[in-house]
Amino acid sequence: MIGDIQVDAQGRRRHFLSTEGMSADTILGILDTAESFISVGEREIKKVPLLRGKTIVNLFFEASTRTRTTFEIAGKRLSADIININTSVSATQKGESLLDTVRNLEAMHTDLFVVRHPLSGAADLIARSVPDHVHVVNAGDGRHAHPTQGLLDMFTIRRYKNDFARLKVAIVGDILHSRVARSQIHALTALGTQEVRVIGPRSLLPAAIERLGVRAFTDLDEGLHGADVIIMLRLQTERMNSALIPGAREYFDLYGLTPRRLRQARPDAIVMHPGPMNRGIEIDSSVADGPQSVILPQVTNGIAVRMAILARLAGATASEPKTP
Amino acid sequence: MIGDIQVDAQGRRRHFLSTEGMSADTILGILDTAESFISVGEREIKKVPLLRGKTIVNLFFEASTRTRTTFEIAGKRLSADIININTSVSATQKGESLLDTVRNLEAMHTDLFVVRHPLSGAADLIARSVPDHVHVVNAGDGRHAHPTQGLLDMFTIRRYKNDFARLKVAIVGDILHSRVARSQIHALTALGTQEVRVIGPRSLLPAAIERLGVRAFTDLDEGLHGADVIIMLRLQTERMNSALIPGAREYFDLYGLTPRRLRQARPDAIVMHPGPMNRGIEIDSSVADGPQSVILPQVTNGIAVRMAILARLAGATASEPKTP
Amino acid sequence: MIGDIQVDAQGRRRHFLSTEGMSADTILGILDTAESFISVGEREIKKVPLLRGKTIVNLFFEASTRTRTTFEIAGKRLSADIININTSVSATQKGESLLDTVRNLEAMHTDLFVVRHPLSGAADLIARSVPDHVHVVNAGDGRHAHPTQGLLDMFTIRRYKNDFARLKVAIVGDILHSRVARSQIHALTALGTQEVRVIGPRSLLPAAIERLGVRAFTDLDEGLHGADVIIMLRLQTERMNSALIPGAREYFDLYGLTPRRLRQARPDAIVMHPGPMNRGIEIDSSVADGPQSVILPQVTNGIAVRMAILARLAGATASEPKTP
Repeated sequence: MIGDIQVDAQGRRRHFLSTEGMSADTILGILDTAESFISVGEREIKKVPLLRGKTIVNLFFEASTRTRTTFEIAGKRLSADIININTSVSATQKGESLLDTVRNLEAMHTDLFVVRHPLSGAADLIARSVPDHVHVVNAGDGRHAHPTQGLLDMFTIRRYKNDFARLKVAIVGDILHSRVARSQIHALTALGTQEVRVIGPRSLLPAAIERLGVRAFTDLDEGLHGADVIIMLRLQTERMNSALIPGAREYFDLYGLTPRRLRQARPDAIVMHPGPMNRGIEIDSSVADGPQSVILPQVTNGIAVRMAILARLAGATASEPKTP
Repeated sequence: MIGDIQVDAQGRRRHFLSTEGMSADTILGILDTAESFISVGEREIKKVPLLRGKTIVNLFFEASTRTRTTFEIAGKRLSADIININTSVSATQKGESLLDTVRNLEAMHTDLFVVRHPLSGAADLIARSVPDHVHVVNAGDGRHAHPTQGLLDMFTIRRYKNDFARLKVAIVGDILHSRVARSQIHALTALGTQEVRVIGPRSLLPAAIERLGVRAFTDLDEGLHGADVIIMLRLQTERMNSALIPGAREYFDLYGLTPRRLRQARPDAIVMHPGPMNRGIEIDSSVADGPQSVILPQVTNGIAVRMAILARLAGATASEPKTP
Repeated sequence: MIGDIQVDAQGRRRHFLSTEGMSADTILGILDTAESFISVGEREIKKVPLLRGKTIVNLFFEASTRTRTTFEIAGKRLSADIININTSVSATQKGESLLDTVRNLEAMHTDLFVVRHPLSGAADLIARSVPDHVHVVNAGDGRHAHPTQGLLDMFTIRRYKNDFARLKVAIVGDILHSRVARSQIHALTALGTQEVRVIGPRSLLPAAIERLGVRAFTDLDEGLHGADVIIMLRLQTERMNSALIPGAREYFDLYGLTPRRLRQARPDAIVMHPGPMNRGIEIDSSVADGPQSVILPQVTNGIAVRMAILARLAGATASEPKTP
């Protein structure tokens, strides 16, 4: 089980790979730490010395300027030294294996790896190979998990909605291929969310999705009915060109979030999106920029949540409740 | 008018987008600040804490290692955290719009954007969209403006020639496509330069260039006659392959600055070039490396001028004279 | 002679370009400094203020994430500001000459250039052009030299084997094209190594290699016999596709280091490799990861040795023994 390698024998968190199996206490503990970092971003001098003299390597095998930037900013505000490595899987295959690359960087006394990789399980593989004092954060691995995104979403929901036990959360779009959705679902269920719904065309819903404790809908209006939180997923361009969906126009008609669709949800529902948005495909601009949108606060919260995760792993050694 | 958004209601400079409409007092104020930063580059420890804890994003939609490097060095010597983002316009178009990109970065509490973009007006568009506490520096937008280059050129001229009211300044080359020339002309006229001349083939001179307050020449010898300052522009490779000029060899014969041509100017004239130079096309190596060349001092001054601009925008909050 | 420009009239080291002509005292002096930096990598806060406010430019005309990363980490742990410039030789040829690029960066008050270039002599050329206060480190130039790799290898050998006068060192592989081998051979002979051997197919051994003071072998078993140190070189992919060697499989059979081959060496022999390794081509995984391998310690030592070199050049001004 992944939980095993994420936490050491003394209950200290070593890695941050997945929200699967993470306890409510663990998640809430990280969110509380993140709250304390929100103010850092609002100060005149946005810097704390927590990770001074630590070396963080952003090891990205998949291009993602956005995610890399959030980790680079988070790390620099913690005063860490950040090394950006952008490489492609093919370059790695030719030259040296993934683990040789990591062992080399580790031999340079890297303290923490932030890993983005197109293959599910890559961050996990790395975490299993590094020595005790080295930490791994999964910044997205294949279709598997994107746990820092999952946690920043929980942070955002808590800021606006408080008690998860009374919330209906709807996740809309390409659930099948989404590591973001997976990380959200695990976190939401761990936090005791009243109801987690997934909405999308049948071709983009995993076969036995209900086993994750969610309700599946293929009709958007029905799925949005009475929701407190709506999370729109990005529709990857490659899906639009595949046989899985009829076309961008048709997708928008059926699953695009418009003001009319939004009225199915509760009047105080918040609208979220992990970005980058396809305006006019999964979301209408008037909703994306409307009063219920908390899409930009998500980005702001993302820095605080990533600072919290980096600081907890590589900085202080405070223990956290053991995962069951 | 651009001047409107560059300065706030209290007369504090918010953005640095263009030298157009900038008053002599404003320009001279920045040059004076830059003078104080010259010594920083000459110290043993080339660092001042003015922008500690500030986040500067170098947002480059056009590759330019040189310009990016000058801003990165300037920012680091001010102790800011620098994030480099190199992207292409096509990537942006596919993924998310320019303003979505900026809003996202802004939500990460970016303090200042340094923007390079192939389209005229891009920096302006961004400046209009950011909240009050976020600053934008135009590092070159299409054919429109490259104001930090313009100001470092004014700084360099003042260091060697002092009183603009007694100077004849000749700008030579592709005036039509040059954002550098445009920024220089606006600054030179604002500073009351006695005579600003532009020299180039008719095909590379804008139609009504005299309206900017300059004299146009198609003959190099005539245009250089009695000049105190000669600014050679880079001839873009694409012009050489176009119908606009006959060929590199012919261009050099007609508009290349050789020792013989240089003798048309005053004996104490200085020779400038924004770089990178095409040796043997717009300038002869013996002139580029000769005793009248101040091309490398321009580069050195560029760091000080950019430090001054970054510091004035994101650091101290001293007011400056309002532009009329 | 290269030694001339590496050291100034007062015997202070200005550049680090080649191990050729370097005295034993000079090498041992750098290794001693490196010893003092080993502990920095093992501290909680891996940072010393020696190069605070200094600007180091990593000027890479050849892609090498590994080498660039080691210098970036070394520079950051010394508190320097690091600017990464990755460019291609073709881009340089088009735009501006190598020396124009360097002069520009130098005009920005760069203190030290770390140069990687596909052409032999490039770092040398740059070193000859920079003013007195600017330093150049060769991070690999064509087939000529990779002296920081050479020195980190000496550091590693000394840590495990102590007295060079009693050591037999075997370098195995593509000696002909290897700048690493060249730098190792010069350093090993300067340090008075008892016997330096090179082993490889005749097509990959330079014609008059014995003149460098080494013994050449085409038979691996014979060359490894009684060796204290084995340095395996990386076989470049392009060699495998050329007529120089029959094929990867055949190469491994003849020159790959397997446990059986390793038994030809002394039982306490150490195995080294500059990385990245081609497992199954020049080295068997069981040897690469085996108890005699010191390949990862080489990487760790590489940071300390590079910190020592950067600090000695750009930091303290202690003199060193003049090279003869």
